[in-house]
Amino acid sequence: MPITQDKHLKLIPIVYKDNMMKLTGIVGYPVTPFSHDGKSVELDKLGSVIDILLEAKVDAIAALGSAGEAAYLSETEWQQVAEYTVKQVKGRVPVVIGIAELTTTQAIKRAKHAYKIGANMIMVSPFSYYKLNEDELFLHFESISNATPLPIMIYNNPATCGVDMSPEFMLKMVSDIKNANMIKESTGDIQRMHKIYKLSNGKVPFFNGCNHMALEAINAGASGWCTAAPCLIGEQPKQLFDAVKQANKEKARELFYQQYEFLEFIVKSGLAAAVKSGLSIQGTPIGEPRKPLLPLTQSAQQQLKVMLMDLDSVV
Amino acid sequence: MPITQDKHLKLIPIVYKDNMMKLTGIVGYPVTPFSHDGKSVELDKLGSVIDILLEAKVDAIAALGSAGEAAYLSETEWQQVAEYTVKQVKGRVPVVIGIAELTTTQAIKRAKHAYKIGANMIMVSPFSYYKLNEDELFLHFESISNATPLPIMIYNNPATCGVDMSPEFMLKMVSDIKNANMIKESTGDIQRMHKIYKLSNGKVPFFNGCNHMALEAINAGASGWCTAAPCLIGEQPKQLFDAVKQANKEKARELFYQQYEFLEFIVKSGLAAAVKSGLSIQGTPIGEPRKPLLPLTQSAQQQLKVMLMDLDSVV
Amino acid sequence: MPITQDKHLKLIPIVYKDNMMKLTGIVGYPVTPFSHDGKSVELDKLGSVIDILLEAKVDAIAALGSAGEAAYLSETEWQQVAEYTVKQVKGRVPVVIGIAELTTTQAIKRAKHAYKIGANMIMVSPFSYYKLNEDELFLHFESISNATPLPIMIYNNPATCGVDMSPEFMLKMVSDIKNANMIKESTGDIQRMHKIYKLSNGKVPFFNGCNHMALEAINAGASGWCTAAPCLIGEQPKQLFDAVKQANKEKARELFYQQYEFLEFIVKSGLAAAVKSGLSIQGTPIGEPRKPLLPLTQSAQQQLKVMLMDLDSVV
Amino acid sequence: MPITQDKHLKLIPIVYKDNMMKLTGIVGYPVTPFSHDGKSVELDKLGSVIDILLEAKVDAIAALGSAGEAAYLSETEWQQVAEYTVKQVKGRVPVVIGIAELTTTQAIKRAKHAYKIGANMIMVSPFSYYKLNEDELFLHFESISNATPLPIMIYNNPATCGVDMSPEFMLKMVSDIKNANMIKESTGDIQRMHKIYKLSNGKVPFFNGCNHMALEAINAGASGWCTAAPCLIGEQPKQLFDAVKQANKEKARELFYQQYEFLEFIVKSGLAAAVKSGLSIQGTPIGEPRKPLLPLTQSAQQQLKVMLMDLDSVV
Repeated sequence: MPITQDKHLKLIPIVYKDNMMKLTGIVGYPVTPFSHDGKSVELDKLGSVIDILLEAKVDAIAALGSAGEAAYLSETEWQQVAEYTVKQVKGRVPVVIGIAELTTTQAIKRAKHAYKIGANMIMVSPFSYYKLNEDELFLHFESISNATPLPIMIYNNPATCGVDMSPEFMLKMVSDIKNANMIKESTGDIQRMHKIYKLSNGKVPFFNGCNHMALEAINAGASGWCTAAPCLIGEQPKQLFDAVKQANKEKARELFYQQYEFLEFIVKSGLAAAVKSGLSIQGTPIGEPRKPLLPLTQSAQQQLKVMLMDLDSVV
Repeated sequence: MPITQDKHLKLIPIVYKDNMMKLTGIVGYPVTPFSHDGKSVELDKLGSVIDILLEAKVDAIAALGSAGEAAYLSETEWQQVAEYTVKQVKGRVPVVIGIAELTTTQAIKRAKHAYKIGANMIMVSPFSYYKLNEDELFLHFESISNATPLPIMIYNNPATCGVDMSPEFMLKMVSDIKNANMIKESTGDIQRMHKIYKLSNGKVPFFNGCNHMALEAINAGASGWCTAAPCLIGEQPKQLFDAVKQANKEKARELFYQQYEFLEFIVKSGLAAAVKSGLSIQGTPIGEPRKPLLPLTQSAQQQLKVMLMDLDSVV
Repeated sequence: MPITQDKHLKLIPIVYKDNMMKLTGIVGYPVTPFSHDGKSVELDKLGSVIDILLEAKVDAIAALGSAGEAAYLSETEWQQVAEYTVKQVKGRVPVVIGIAELTTTQAIKRAKHAYKIGANMIMVSPFSYYKLNEDELFLHFESISNATPLPIMIYNNPATCGVDMSPEFMLKMVSDIKNANMIKESTGDIQRMHKIYKLSNGKVPFFNGCNHMALEAINAGASGWCTAAPCLIGEQPKQLFDAVKQANKEKARELFYQQYEFLEFIVKSGLAAAVKSGLSIQGTPIGEPRKPLLPLTQSAQQQLKVMLMDLDSVV
Repeated sequence: MPITQDKHLKLIPIVYKDNMMKLTGIVGYPVTPFSHDGKSVELDKLGSVIDILLEAKVDAIAALGSAGEAAYLSETEWQQVAEYTVKQVKGRVPVVIGIAELTTTQAIKRAKHAYKIGANMIMVSPFSYYKLNEDELFLHFESISNATPLPIMIYNNPATCGVDMSPEFMLKMVSDIKNANMIKESTGDIQRMHKIYKLSNGKVPFFNGCNHMALEAINAGASGWCTAAPCLIGEQPKQLFDAVKQANKEKARELFYQQYEFLEFIVKSGLAAAVKSGLSIQGTPIGEPRKPLLPLTQSAQQQLKVMLMDLDSVV
């Protein structure tokens, strides 16, 4: 059932898809714990992080995103983390697997692996060395879609991936590529979400990937909020999401501004480094990020500790 | 009563000021009608535009802003528009006078004039040729504040004025300059509003100057929305403002997305040109913008007409 | 005689114009001296500055540019400076008058005045409040061209004027507007000059307006260098220009790097403030820039003094 | 022998290093040929490309740079290309190996490999997912320097690597990191080169990595020009380099503008895609770039063919 073409606004016609998941709420991002020497992944500690997220009532778990340092893992490590996550979650919530590969061949390989191990969905971002044009991007996403039946969340994050995709282009992919079903937008520009909502007549689910824009993203119609924050502040992101959805305006604003400084801090400090430091402050040491990434400086750790105390997240 | 200094966040201490107006809601911006040959201002037609705004239930009238083409008026014309507006409004709502002068001397002269004729407030933006540094900006605003007792709304609009002022700097001016009481933010970056709210502990009133960001600005705590939109779509901006304030989330989102395309259009087409074309379409011809500004092209006028019809604003 | 259309490159066909001046070399920019209280222009001191430039062997004098604080002068002051400059120069070199007005009507008025008083050329930049589109820009320049027979140098300086004009668009104006004959490029992007040279087959004279890009601009084919630097460092800019033209590569590079820090400094500090401070250091006090512009801070003055000493320009 | 500290300019003190190579001239970049199905590297064809570069009189060969699609190769392929290049060049010119790895561990591994196989130098760029701060960057480069005795060319290319390093920071690394000896600058901002030259008193060799800025880079003091252009237009880049060095200003400008459109084209089209298409046009088909990279479109190929004909590089 295509959307009726509007006279003046060029609406993107979207056909509903059977495999369009009804995902909504908080999509939680675990970090990837490393051993003391940084050389290997510690899966049991990953289990603890996943448990923290599930206790924080996240609605899905997204492994191998930015927070999970996916870009810094070897092929084997990446597979271990993907498999372990699916097993640990045990179907309690959907598992999303992040795929950000430089070559299409490698992205397909990982997408197939995600399907094989029982993940529910993949989130694909076009990590790039050379800037990619829209023909290249389209073919990349289409090739991945053809390789597995998993629903695809198109993920736009130019700050890490080096390529920016317009709302119009991403909606065209949702329209024309079989499994491309939803969008995660992380530019921090609220107008992108307005465009997605308006051009798709509110029919294409989009998710907020910019932590300190959560309040307005949800108000603008975002289906969910992709965040590593619940690793450190528990149910508070979920409470914010629910307050907006329940039209509890004053409570939503209060919750947002309580978390605001923390949310901005973890983005600006680098999610992996910030969350790992925070877990250590909270008594769950899981190692450092992988070099060249460095842990937070002493003074940044102190700042984070004060913030976590203010959010009742350190005893 | 200064705001309590927070341990980690560098809050800006704000002393409450007796002359801090309790302005809230829609601040309406009239355009400035010109004669057919473009050489003179037509005050009676300005009266009609002001009446349209008052009928649209605006909470204040802001003369001589961007929409009013203040930058393109002669000294005499500027004074005529200011005086006429105050007389025409007759105290029904507060009158704000925009001041965007290249020299401090000229800005002081206009501020004094605004006070003399009975305006309630001035909105000052640092229109610039050379980029101004913070020392220059501070002294400019302070000199204007020393020249009249009128409350000052600090107006940040780098796109037209060529200077960008950070939330921190504007809050410092609110803190240290006697009559600097509130802020109008027009960068289109919602994070600026979060910063103003958070750093002032919600104590400094701020206004949204970016039309197509109205939904999130009000949700983020903006006291009001500065807009020329009511010139063309009547009470609809006021309804949106009220829906957000009344926590009517679904209605607010619906109203916002109804107006969204129109709001973006008038910003991107240039407010003066777009509003003047719109008024002509609606049967209130008030001339063209002043050259080098050109009226909307035929096809843009047609686009605008369709939008206005969709908003039930053309019969 | 139009340039032959190339098969693949879209060359802009340029018709040679009788009034295309053979201007080449250093175009010197005087600053505008103010009285102690800043309220009036001091014409006799302007005479001293013009003499300094002529002694520095500039090939033309450009009054009322950025360095001349034209944007901060009243109508009367502007006319006084224009007239005085033409009289003082007495035809020894061509006089260029800068025009950067917000309205087309005002720009035409000033262009006519420049012609009436005997200036040789006008340099027109589209100072803007609202961003102007190419239709608006074209009509603005065309209207000015129709108002006087003076040759026009199209001046692109988005940093001060708020509008950026592409090489392609400026060449189109040179092609289609009678008196538009040459271009001054101040973006600091050397590729703009390559484009002007290449697209016009080297036929359209262009001038460098970015001081610290002088070496490469002249190497890339610039006809001249528009600069206020000779106010402070005498013939050194001319020597650099000549060294490049005479293919004295080592000397050119040496001269450039000698002046480099100074050239960057006066741009970053604001030309008017920096040159006025420098003249004061050199024993020719001519007042301060007009507020909101402030003079250099003490420490910046000290920096400037050391640079001038290194350039043998302070005794 | 440290550079004398200047009174006002904060010169970076550089100690001369024994292993600072006297590299100068054209550093040629081979592309990496793939088999028809894109699955493997074709080493014999790589040999042909290297021969083309040597015939074009390049002064060094840089394998595994952007043009070589290093980011898209597997570990094994990367090693094959590195080894083959060293063997094929047989010491006729120095061999530089590009290293752009996401983790420090992986970068060290490749640096050691480069040393083991007899490369003369490594060119290290901080390819990134998370943005890296200066502490992270410094430690990354320092760790690589500690792992091998090979001289390091610090390579700044934010467009592909996602991190921008200032001239000041790169010079600090040259000063403080043992094997960091020279800089390749690819931002396209000529001011970066001025800063490197000026702050190091001309003592730190820097190379131009922005093809269409070659003329000014060499005039500004660049030791060399890193380019894949000789793959397609033979000795012409070398002739341009020599013309500038020999102060043959008119010839240099003529040669530059002859090549200009071609140089800009290959940068904007993507070096790997453009050079591979060009070689195919010239009768040396070496396959396509690796997906998601696509070959040039038909019309772009046609454009390239015309350019190559104009440069006498297609028969």
